[in-house]
Amino acid sequence: MNGPLGSKTWAIAEGYIPANSSVAGRELESHETVCILNCGERDAQVEIAVYFADREPAGPYRFSVPARRTRHVRFNDLTEPEAIPRATDFASVIRADEPVVIQHTRLDSRQPALALMSTVAFPDR
Amino acid sequence: MNGPLGSKTWAIAEGYIPANSSVAGRELESHETVCILNCGERDAQVEIAVYFADREPAGPYRFSVPARRTRHVRFNDLTEPEAIPRATDFASVIRADEPVVIQHTRLDSRQPALALMSTVAFPDR
Amino acid sequence: MNGPLGSKTWAIAEGYIPANSSVAGRELESHETVCILNCGERDAQVEIAVYFADREPAGPYRFSVPARRTRHVRFNDLTEPEAIPRATDFASVIRADEPVVIQHTRLDSRQPALALMSTVAFPDR
Amino acid sequence: MNGPLGSKTWAIAEGYIPANSSVAGRELESHETVCILNCGERDAQVEIAVYFADREPAGPYRFSVPARRTRHVRFNDLTEPEAIPRATDFASVIRADEPVVIQHTRLDSRQPALALMSTVAFPDR
Repeated sequence: MNGPLGSKTWAIAEGYIPANSSVAGRELESHETVCILNCGERDAQVEIAVYFADREPAGPYRFSVPARRTRHVRFNDLTEPEAIPRATDFASVIRADEPVVIQHTRLDSRQPALALMSTVAFPDR
Repeated sequence: MNGPLGSKTWAIAEGYIPANSSVAGRELESHETVCILNCGERDAQVEIAVYFADREPAGPYRFSVPARRTRHVRFNDLTEPEAIPRATDFASVIRADEPVVIQHTRLDSRQPALALMSTVAFPDR
Repeated sequence: MNGPLGSKTWAIAEGYIPANSSVAGRELESHETVCILNCGERDAQVEIAVYFADREPAGPYRFSVPARRTRHVRFNDLTEPEAIPRATDFASVIRADEPVVIQHTRLDSRQPALALMSTVAFPDR
Repeated sequence: MNGPLGSKTWAIAEGYIPANSSVAGRELESHETVCILNCGERDAQVEIAVYFADREPAGPYRFSVPARRTRHVRFNDLTEPEAIPRATDFASVIRADEPVVIQHTRLDSRQPALALMSTVAFPDR
């Protein structure tokens, strides 16, 4: 059940971290997530560039996803080289040095009843 | 981290702007959005044609997405050559003169608890 | 802004019509929709086969989508050759004689706050 | 209306079974589902591997999807060789010996108003 799967370059044209949450605590806090699956046998080095409407892109945000692991990274948690502003439209390009699979999910809890959305990102291949 | 990514032609078969919202203000108003990412080095000229069930298509709606920028355009805001009717099924085709990546998102706040949906659009390639 | 776009065969592996709705009226009734865009210059004849967990497929359900038009068809409304059962897992294959683009959307209003989901269907190409 | 459709290998980078539900009963319990459509004429043997952030993958989880049938399998229900932990990020790779089509859906009912998300999984082809 092994072997690399996916693409080394992906894009997510949607991005928005709601400015607030109706619920306290990390679990149900409004968040925007990039889910990365590395089902290959080599660790993947990942870089994210974040695009905006009216300024030059931010990043690169760098981290690794070990072989045979998944990481679900919240854009809320990205701080180096700079935090992602809240309530601001953005988009992202994710590049890895090994094939990975990427899915984009948002949990929005600005109102008491949370809302969800998810889509596989756009692969370049 | 540069270079064009995506396709010059995309389609979104779903489209519907809810007729009302339970919340006042632009942020949580019911809306239908096309998110466009241009991560290339040249500005992209974009044209949207809007299709309906029972009349000829509307448009083209024209705007640009600068190099290394994203624009999240609400169908609610398109007025030239004509506004998109509310509570009406539609679909759209987006053409650009540079490769772009497109994602479709709806926020529906007809009821007090908002609902979200999102998907990468269908690329022609 | 014309020209055919899409595929002649699509699949939707998810399908479920909730058995009830918390709201009266067609607009917010729980429904499962297949959105079909025909942006070409020829009318498309469409056939849907519906698959289940424990019986032979139902259908074909036949209708047309005229040139330069979109139709958002609710599975709730399909009755010939038989109605789709509620609260039952299903899936569908959509075949057309012209290229079309297909997106799948569900509105679930079993609870007072509606939920939405949407995805571009899977094209065979 | 027959013939195989899809891919033999798919990935879902997102995965999370909420730890609780605000509603009793199987129908509205928080769940994470993989919907599999086998529209071909031969039964498909399916294997799922589940990937985590900080341990080796679990599985394979094995079952079959008969010819001309769909199965919507909840990750909640997978118990052999081990249950999937709740409130834990995961991802999955699905391999079949016949082409199938796969869609990923979550119903989250941690709060009284449920939330939904769905996307076609990522096919390897």
